[in-house]
Amino acid sequence: MEINIPEIQAEVTAMFHEYETALVSNDVETLDRLFFNAPTTIRYGGGENLYGYGEIAAFRSGRPNVDLARTLERVEITTYGRDFATASTHYIKPSAPTKVGRQMQTWVRTPEGWKVVAAHVSMIERPDGS
Amino acid sequence: MEINIPEIQAEVTAMFHEYETALVSNDVETLDRLFFNAPTTIRYGGGENLYGYGEIAAFRSGRPNVDLARTLERVEITTYGRDFATASTHYIKPSAPTKVGRQMQTWVRTPEGWKVVAAHVSMIERPDGS
Repeated sequence: MEINIPEIQAEVTAMFHEYETALVSNDVETLDRLFFNAPTTIRYGGGENLYGYGEIAAFRSGRPNVDLARTLERVEITTYGRDFATASTHYIKPSAPTKVGRQMQTWVRTPEGWKVVAAHVSMIERPDGS
Repeated sequence: MEINIPEIQAEVTAMFHEYETALVSNDVETLDRLFFNAPTTIRYGGGENLYGYGEIAAFRSGRPNVDLARTLERVEITTYGRDFATASTHYIKPSAPTKVGRQMQTWVRTPEGWKVVAAHVSMIERPDGS
């Protein structure tokens, strides 16, 4: 299994940035489209644990459209073969400058394109050197 | 791509529990063996962000052997094809009963067996209904 085939890494990187743009602009339709529509999809969020596409979509629809701006640091996209990838990043919110957010996603190529099948978002105090 | 082929799900479930046993008994050798030895492996921990196998192994070696006991809730293992999987669980620590930990791992089948290539651990106040 080849890691980081350049063309595959480029595909997933493009998807990652499409997701990020949708997130900070609260483009719910795109956010929904980029998560895999299955009961097995999981999203552990900053303050909630969501199981299955339906719970995730309901959360997106209900989320207040405030405090969405953030800056990414250390984006790491790694692909495994041609159909599987992880995307990890730190994010900093202007409203919480002493903290560092961590977002980790697992992406799978499906017949409908690349989709997030699992995601975990959390925020901690910024450790030394992060 | 077939999701949750029973024999593959059984394989990854066994690996997941091997990891859990090693974690609560601080079996560093097994923990190290179950993470993919590559610079691309990432572990976002409860209070640290670790990049590459070397940083993760150094953290394991230096971790105090205290407060390791925990109870798992809602373990969800999902496999994608025969070589990729995610493993997600909640955990409750007796020392923090009002909180819920979340552990999410991405597993890949390598020539040396199943390995964690990305992991994210965080703890939040227990949301209603979690």
